[in-house]
Amino acid sequence: MKGKFIVIEGLEGAGKTTARDTVVAALNANGIQNIVFTREPGGTPLAEKLRELVKQGVEGELLTDKAEVLMMYASRIQLIDNVIKPALGRGSWVVGDRHDLSSQAYQGGGRGIDNKLMTTLRDTVLGDFYPDLTLYLDLPPEIGLQRARQRGELDRIEKESLSFFERTRARYLELAASDSSIITIDASQPLELVTADIRQAMKQWLESNK
Amino acid sequence: MKGKFIVIEGLEGAGKTTARDTVVAALNANGIQNIVFTREPGGTPLAEKLRELVKQGVEGELLTDKAEVLMMYASRIQLIDNVIKPALGRGSWVVGDRHDLSSQAYQGGGRGIDNKLMTTLRDTVLGDFYPDLTLYLDLPPEIGLQRARQRGELDRIEKESLSFFERTRARYLELAASDSSIITIDASQPLELVTADIRQAMKQWLESNK
Ligand SMILES: Nc1ncnc2c1ncn2[C@@H]1O[C@H](COP(=O)(O)OP(=O)(O)O)[C@@H](O)[C@H]1O
Ligand SMILES: Nc1ncnc2c1ncn2[C@@H]1O[C@H](COP(=O)(O)OP(=O)(O)O)[C@@H](O)[C@H]1O
Ligand SMILES: [Mg+2]
Ligand SMILES: [Mg+2]
Repeated sequence: MKGKFIVIEGLEGAGKTTARDTVVAALNANGIQNIVFTREPGGTPLAEKLRELVKQGVEGELLTDKAEVLMMYASRIQLIDNVIKPALGRGSWVVGDRHDLSSQAYQGGGRGIDNKLMTTLRDTVLGDFYPDLTLYLDLPPEIGLQRARQRGELDRIEKESLSFFERTRARYLELAASDSSIITIDASQPLELVTADIRQAMKQWLESNK
Repeated sequence: MKGKFIVIEGLEGAGKTTARDTVVAALNANGIQNIVFTREPGGTPLAEKLRELVKQGVEGELLTDKAEVLMMYASRIQLIDNVIKPALGRGSWVVGDRHDLSSQAYQGGGRGIDNKLMTTLRDTVLGDFYPDLTLYLDLPPEIGLQRARQRGELDRIEKESLSFFERTRARYLELAASDSSIITIDASQPLELVTADIRQAMKQWLESNK
């Protein structure tokens, strides 16, 4: 089986990082050992610098919504061209902690950036590059934020209002409903049940893609 | 007279920084004292960080053309929203060392980024914000590069091939020809003649905008 790109998506505290191990275990169980991990924004030296600027902002300067989305896409195209595509080209699998769906949900839904810009960025910057499978971990934002808060200091985006995350979640759900390559997992369940659902989803998907 | 936005454009070594004094003298001669200077990319703390990343790149990582243009527009919208618009709103004049025409010429012409992305970035990111006057200092790239080289080390973009700058110049000339707010100055002339042309252009423009 040729290397594929699997993305884990969801709000802060949804369980994306926790889910990674379950995804990797499912791949290993199918004899897939060659796995590259990415996170977004970030994942290359330049993209990590952009991540830092976007996550922390710059003291005393308002970071505009438009600059934010442009920096997200600058980070993403660096990662795709310099890391993801070369890895897939070598036959590796790639497991991503967030990808374009995050921008569609956060910048498109949460920030309300206009659709023309979102669509052009997606189509013109990324071209026809698209994940093979996305696991979207869905949960009410208040639950996710509560989990994330226990992790420590919140960054510039994590400090957004609850209504921002509700708009973000609504856009996630809307996009997941219209795209068969996105599988929605109920991430508000206890961890064992979430893990079981991910294991099951991976098993089915790997079977049907053999 | 309400504050206006005047941009000085042209290839490296065209004489943009030198021209600024002539523009300022013409404004002062018309009783305009309140002038804010900008440069692009850059001009805000975040935009200067993006300038540094774009101009120097990151050791060992290929900077893609698309990331470059996205970072240019991220820098530009930060500058417009946080510096240029507020200055114009206070009644100041703004004199810019480069602005959007540079992206159209360098990224659109030089790099060959597709027109759909360039047009959407211009229209969707910048909206209807546009300079009142642009002075485009035109000269063959080999002359400009020779002047710039005497200034010291060349940066990542200044190190581009002559054909890159020829495509950039061609796009500059094409856009200047179709836009009456852009005045082309022959910057290959001796400095006194360039200065006289700029003085004359400013005088006429200020008269007709009284
Ligand atoms: N289903 C779950 N129920 C309760 N806590 C969870 C669950 N999934 C993850 N967690 C915990 O929530 C926190 C955030 O999980 P994490 O995987 O880091 O989320 P993310 O990467 O999506 O921000 C961690 O402390 C994790 O142990
Ligand atoms: N018309 C001219 N003829 C000869 N040298 C010039 C002329 N205009 C500027 N210079 C010199 O060329 C160099 C680059 O000019 P500068 O104004 O810094 O260009 P830019 O800001 O467009 O890169 C400077 O050393 C400047 O003194
Ligand atoms: Mg995480
Ligand atoms: Mg200069």
